[in-house]
Amino acid sequence: MECFDTHMHSEGKGITELKAMAENGIKRAVSCAYYPVTPSSPSTLVDMFRKLSTFEVERGEKAGMEIIPAVGVHPRCICGGWEDALGWVEENARVIGEIGLETASNVEVEVLSAQLKLASKLDLPCVVHTPRKNKVEVTEKVLEVVRSSGIGEDLVVIDHATSETASKILKEGHWCGLTVQPGKISVEEAVSIIEEHGFEKFVLNSDTGFNDWEMLTVAETVKALEEKFDSRDVRKVAFENGRKIFRV
Amino acid sequence: MECFDTHMHSEGKGITELKAMAENGIKRAVSCAYYPVTPSSPSTLVDMFRKLSTFEVERGEKAGMEIIPAVGVHPRCICGGWEDALGWVEENARVIGEIGLETASNVEVEVLSAQLKLASKLDLPCVVHTPRKNKVEVTEKVLEVVRSSGIGEDLVVIDHATSETASKILKEGHWCGLTVQPGKISVEEAVSIIEEHGFEKFVLNSDTGFNDWEMLTVAETVKALEEKFDSRDVRKVAFENGRKIFRV
Repeated sequence: MECFDTHMHSEGKGITELKAMAENGIKRAVSCAYYPVTPSSPSTLVDMFRKLSTFEVERGEKAGMEIIPAVGVHPRCICGGWEDALGWVEENARVIGEIGLETASNVEVEVLSAQLKLASKLDLPCVVHTPRKNKVEVTEKVLEVVRSSGIGEDLVVIDHATSETASKILKEGHWCGLTVQPGKISVEEAVSIIEEHGFEKFVLNSDTGFNDWEMLTVAETVKALEEKFDSRDVRKVAFENGRKIFRV
Repeated sequence: MECFDTHMHSEGKGITELKAMAENGIKRAVSCAYYPVTPSSPSTLVDMFRKLSTFEVERGEKAGMEIIPAVGVHPRCICGGWEDALGWVEENARVIGEIGLETASNVEVEVLSAQLKLASKLDLPCVVHTPRKNKVEVTEKVLEVVRSSGIGEDLVVIDHATSETASKILKEGHWCGLTVQPGKISVEEAVSIIEEHGFEKFVLNSDTGFNDWEMLTVAETVKALEEKFDSRDVRKVAFENGRKIFRV
């Protein structure tokens, strides 16, 4: 079945890896902005957004994968003058991401809030990160910041959800991103979360990128779902929900 | 045989690709600075140098490959304020590269000349690019700029050499880099150039990176050389010359 990986970092993947993903059914992916060392200035962020929105999209085409660029300031990429990078986002973004909270510090909250307000103003979908550490507390803080930004609930994907955070996310009316990856959730956990809450509000992703993480977990999860559920339902989390959110 | 790829761009390669290179004997590589869209400011260059010198070295370690970072301003990456990026190079570089000429414009000559003088002052090896277009003329111009910079001949690798340019490069006393890649030179051409000029002053590389170019051409060339020549000679171009130049 065709698959849509709604959160990865194509900049960390070689072209033979992107090809392997496409050959395994992952024909479309949201590639999120992230810089592996803390930028020293906003121009590094802007140049990375430019690279993601042109060069990476072309690299995806060569590999048989439609790459949808998501641009924004990741909580681990906040630098002095970060506001200056939002001018480029305002003029060029199709999706805002990866934004979110890592430690929930004041500056992280300020950066997230500014970007959610921008997304609301521009009517753009957002990919929102929640951290591995203090998952439940920080997810609650993320939901609070999202609520007070005034953005429409269905513009927001809260990502890296777990069995503990999924119901909180769904209760707020957001999309819920399941990141299937060793150290995050397993294929079995993803299947069981979807079994509990239904197919309507979930998307699947790998978060694969600069690391040596698994590239094919979305395809593997879709396969496991197909063994258990009706394919009309599986299609929703495999690609239909993603196409709706990201307007492809 | 152990191989040393003396010119690649690890930032464009996924970790499974770096692993594949290491598993095929390419245990060491010089990873050269390059940004795929023209930077808007020198801070993008500096952050890329920082990423290459820390994050990429660690990614290499995970993949079983020693990555030697080469930092510098590529002729296709010249931006306003490029001089400001050289401060970081002066304090941190171990190898200067990828520098060189693409069109041989005045600004390219100025940037190359400044970096060669810096390398001379710091006693650092340099990886110097020659272009695909107007190969012979631009290589001659590169050699002229190198000559007038006053740098020691044996600090300079002139890269992407062909059967036409190799003898000119060797005549000046530089190292000669053979980039084995479809569109550059083939394994057979590399073997024949080395057969003509001997093993003393050549290194082998792939220039693999952000593109879908072959990753294993250095290993393939070494294998082809082993079938024809004494392994004591082959070792020179496979890794000994590279270890000498880049001081590993």
